[in-house]
Amino acid sequence: MSSEIPFYMRVRYGDTDQMGVVYYANYLYWFEVGRTEFCRFHGKSYSQWEAEGIFLPVVEAHCRYKHPARYEDEIAIFTKVGELKAGSMTFECRIERKADGRHLAAGWTRHAFVDRTGKIVRGDNPLRRWIESFGG
Amino acid sequence: MSSEIPFYMRVRYGDTDQMGVVYYANYLYWFEVGRTEFCRFHGKSYSQWEAEGIFLPVVEAHCRYKHPARYEDEIAIFTKVGELKAGSMTFECRIERKADGRHLAAGWTRHAFVDRTGKIVRGDNPLRRWIESFGG
Amino acid sequence: MSSEIPFYMRVRYGDTDQMGVVYYANYLYWFEVGRTEFCRFHGKSYSQWEAEGIFLPVVEAHCRYKHPARYEDEIAIFTKVGELKAGSMTFECRIERKADGRHLAAGWTRHAFVDRTGKIVRGDNPLRRWIESFGG
Amino acid sequence: MSSEIPFYMRVRYGDTDQMGVVYYANYLYWFEVGRTEFCRFHGKSYSQWEAEGIFLPVVEAHCRYKHPARYEDEIAIFTKVGELKAGSMTFECRIERKADGRHLAAGWTRHAFVDRTGKIVRGDNPLRRWIESFGG
Repeated sequence: MSSEIPFYMRVRYGDTDQMGVVYYANYLYWFEVGRTEFCRFHGKSYSQWEAEGIFLPVVEAHCRYKHPARYEDEIAIFTKVGELKAGSMTFECRIERKADGRHLAAGWTRHAFVDRTGKIVRGDNPLRRWIESFGG
Repeated sequence: MSSEIPFYMRVRYGDTDQMGVVYYANYLYWFEVGRTEFCRFHGKSYSQWEAEGIFLPVVEAHCRYKHPARYEDEIAIFTKVGELKAGSMTFECRIERKADGRHLAAGWTRHAFVDRTGKIVRGDNPLRRWIESFGG
Repeated sequence: MSSEIPFYMRVRYGDTDQMGVVYYANYLYWFEVGRTEFCRFHGKSYSQWEAEGIFLPVVEAHCRYKHPARYEDEIAIFTKVGELKAGSMTFECRIERKADGRHLAAGWTRHAFVDRTGKIVRGDNPLRRWIESFGG
Repeated sequence: MSSEIPFYMRVRYGDTDQMGVVYYANYLYWFEVGRTEFCRFHGKSYSQWEAEGIFLPVVEAHCRYKHPARYEDEIAIFTKVGELKAGSMTFECRIERKADGRHLAAGWTRHAFVDRTGKIVRGDNPLRRWIESFGG
């Protein structure tokens, strides 16, 4: 199993809602930032995989919100590979408040491997092999 | 158990991403629209509940994406109450393409009942009683 | 000059920020909704124009915010054609609170006419002729 | 006049639209990130100003889009103070592609100084004096 790869960023004003905390949908943008940085960390950006014709559309997403993130908080997004199956994979993600390590939220996204036409690619493919190569 | 309450709207250009489909996080905005319209349909808007000091922050969210929504599609958002517990409730939501009834996505959001200070309200409260009153 | 075409919708919770009003960037989504509905009203959706290979990327945008929109307000988005030039056109848009007609914001977006390769199309083109046909 | 303060970040997948470029409204989030970092750079975060009861709601916004930003581009957001008037101020912002310095977009936001009740604060106030202190 792969290790967690961290990425740090600051909460935007536009991420908040009138309850004074980050609106729940924005955590899914943070999960996406985490996945992007995870790929970059391992040497090949998600853009490059798309350019080579392999895409990872989200087929399922889950998030458990434990403690709110607030405007201007610095957050840490930790991403790792969860499951790797024939036609899909999951990324697991957790969000911490950087200042004190407070756990804010955690979840996962499940992705199909698809080609440029949208057809699901089952079994072996370059992206899957790459993920396996670093213990994913 | 309550019935599904429908709401219709059109997909925006800004909802899409470069894969040519609606970006996954935007479905959570649609779930929220569904909840808002569900409350309005049953006679008391969520704004009114907030004004009376009862809030429903999201504590957990889940979405399964089956078929993509695209720009300018008219979608139908069907919302109903799922579970009603002592300190939380869930709304269940499914999204259909209106033109042909194609199932696009489904999910749920779980909410705590909290007061103006953010403190969880367990057991009986006016919002909970109201939800129970129409079979929720 | 074309007439204003109205479209009505309700403000989402996710549109607000911690100041308790709609976050300023979201008005630009509303301008886009206005343009989409303007095209549909006049008989040919923007999707159809894109399918025929004419695109209207935004090259300039402006918004003056007079009075805030709030969660669950029903708003009216009025859109009309502003200028029509050789290589660009503008849509003008204003937002009202439907309940009492209160003026909330107004602005415009300027668009280039481009083809599928991104090359600017100057002078005559089907979309431009169509806009002129209804007094745009 | 104040100097430009830079901030670097990467474009998200969720920032793009089906035209394969960043959706125009998202540049306004980047302007906001620029303002936040500008304040932090000068020693007092915008959150702290809000905590002290001075707010800077946007009353006008403008953006000129010259060249598109794309997914995973690293961008540089340069922010400086524009005008400083009795009841308002402007921030000017420009966006560059970091890799090659390509100019992507530029614009400004005009803000009123308001207190916690939303009342406009004209003339002297702590935030205004602070901005003047570093040549704003």
